[in-house]
Amino acid sequence: MKALRWHAARDLRLSDLQLPQPGPGEVLVQVAYCGICGSDLHEYADGPHSIPQQEPHPLSGCRAPLTLGHEFCGQVLAVGAGVERVRVGSRVAVEPEYRCGDCQYCRAGQYNLCQSMGFIGLMGDGGFAEQVLVPAYMLHPLPDSVSFKQAAVLEPAAVAFHALNQSSLLAGDSCVVFGLGPIGLLLILLARLRGVERIFAVDISPERRRLARDFGAQEVLDGHAADLPQRLHKLSGGGVDTAFEAAGSQQTLSLALHALRKGGEVVLVGLMGEVNFDAFHLVNHELRLLGSVGYRNAYPPLIELLASGRLDLTRAVTRCVTLDQAVEHGFEALLRDKSQIKVLVNPNPELAKA
Amino acid sequence: MKALRWHAARDLRLSDLQLPQPGPGEVLVQVAYCGICGSDLHEYADGPHSIPQQEPHPLSGCRAPLTLGHEFCGQVLAVGAGVERVRVGSRVAVEPEYRCGDCQYCRAGQYNLCQSMGFIGLMGDGGFAEQVLVPAYMLHPLPDSVSFKQAAVLEPAAVAFHALNQSSLLAGDSCVVFGLGPIGLLLILLARLRGVERIFAVDISPERRRLARDFGAQEVLDGHAADLPQRLHKLSGGGVDTAFEAAGSQQTLSLALHALRKGGEVVLVGLMGEVNFDAFHLVNHELRLLGSVGYRNAYPPLIELLASGRLDLTRAVTRCVTLDQAVEHGFEALLRDKSQIKVLVNPNPELAKA
Repeated sequence: MKALRWHAARDLRLSDLQLPQPGPGEVLVQVAYCGICGSDLHEYADGPHSIPQQEPHPLSGCRAPLTLGHEFCGQVLAVGAGVERVRVGSRVAVEPEYRCGDCQYCRAGQYNLCQSMGFIGLMGDGGFAEQVLVPAYMLHPLPDSVSFKQAAVLEPAAVAFHALNQSSLLAGDSCVVFGLGPIGLLLILLARLRGVERIFAVDISPERRRLARDFGAQEVLDGHAADLPQRLHKLSGGGVDTAFEAAGSQQTLSLALHALRKGGEVVLVGLMGEVNFDAFHLVNHELRLLGSVGYRNAYPPLIELLASGRLDLTRAVTRCVTLDQAVEHGFEALLRDKSQIKVLVNPNPELAKA
Repeated sequence: MKALRWHAARDLRLSDLQLPQPGPGEVLVQVAYCGICGSDLHEYADGPHSIPQQEPHPLSGCRAPLTLGHEFCGQVLAVGAGVERVRVGSRVAVEPEYRCGDCQYCRAGQYNLCQSMGFIGLMGDGGFAEQVLVPAYMLHPLPDSVSFKQAAVLEPAAVAFHALNQSSLLAGDSCVVFGLGPIGLLLILLARLRGVERIFAVDISPERRRLARDFGAQEVLDGHAADLPQRLHKLSGGGVDTAFEAAGSQQTLSLALHALRKGGEVVLVGLMGEVNFDAFHLVNHELRLLGSVGYRNAYPPLIELLASGRLDLTRAVTRCVTLDQAVEHGFEALLRDKSQIKVLVNPNPELAKA
């Protein structure tokens, strides 16, 4: 089988590997689509970041070189012993978080915080391949009404869905989204689905702002505007209820905190390092700063929303490419072209069409 | 009537003022006790911080010089027109937050966030006086079983109670309190009352650590210990659920964030300025940073707990002084002696005894 392997930064190789056989609790999946994520781009551009180099990941047993790709779906080719969740031929989405099932977090249902947390496609061989071996617990059967193209966007949608769940945003509230990449745009789509109308979207890219309007933002604002917090206070009638920081920068975090009403909250989805904030302002305005990582229990409700037709995730898909086009028309295109949102790789074009 | 007036830093003057008469919606209170708060000390040591200098406060109409003191209780001497909440002779605790009653926050019951928020005794004439004029909405009648000495500590207890309400701490969880001043010690007392056993307390002062143990901390730790986060992880079995930052320093905030389990939270009660934190750690561990300011709807449940005998706030009282001793034996003593927790001033010794 063919697989796109990460060997080093700027060194992805299309290799021919032996087809793996599913052991107990494992399932072999024929990949229909695998989306390219921001973290795949980071590993490609200047990795390794999350890819294990020395010690293999405790749950996958893998280290570099390995096959990237964690946003994937497909069809079951073979199942190992003891697998009852799916059968050969099942159409499935893959929720790519490894979990031990036994630590305090897994036992509490917070498996995104698992002590041995990791992602297939970053810490183990992933979906930029014709076939991939997956632990059965990662699989969610897809109803016939949910296409593979929809299912391929479930992973970033789950990130946005979980960030919304961390917030206390209710129908009729207001929110602002900083950073209009795939997660920011999906936040807009999913916030609207919860009855939020006053959605403000901020990015420095005009293309991204245009897309945000298409996705349902009521107002879009240039991230470079000098009076951004004041404008957001005016638009929201005194400060927004919730800000989502999906840009990952010091500047947007500060803007987010000052765009809030008293008692408001910032959900941090973007990754950044050591940052400053005005703790006096946070205490005095009784603000909340909430981290959000990965997702838990998000795939079933999202699949239900897709099946009902109320949610259309294919709006985020701007291009589909084959496995041998993935580097040039996928990774490279995403790095240089801000109008590209979600590029899907289809290693098995026949299956993707089905 | 005599009143202790703030004129400037280190300049509190005991003055003889004309007895005020209650206007509509106002009540004249004979002060039994008024506690000295950390913010009174700040105003005394190097104020003004919150005291209005130029523009009078919109709700009190006051500016400096004014009478300090916001932690007080007493007996109603006279009521203005339209007051039905209390009558002459009623024993009352004063919840000293001004509120407009009409802004979006007041309407939502979040009156501690009122647009015109302020404190009687900081933005208006307060309780270091024989008598004080108070808006009727600030008053809570006291059951006979609740002594004035208990009631005098309701204000700092309300700060701690509200901070606990901001957290998601449940019976059986673990917490750590950084900073063992009155608020930190009352947090310990109130956390125990909620069924929290694993309470860890951190301060650099040995006297304060001794007091924390008396107040119910299971373990006390020196804030200067090099391996503090590691020891807290060990004591709590993998990281504490909730940390209360009541010291107001950059260092304790960092320690607090690193003492948490994944999914844990820091409640910020102490005031600090611009600070750093590791946002990568916050997101990756899905932590929450929660501001807490003042209190709302905290007096009625606390008075109920006092009346039932389940809560004893007099444990925080280390000294009582008269109005003319307040500067030397109150303010000055608190600034130099770490074993002093709550010093109460009793401007009417006969009433305090009653």
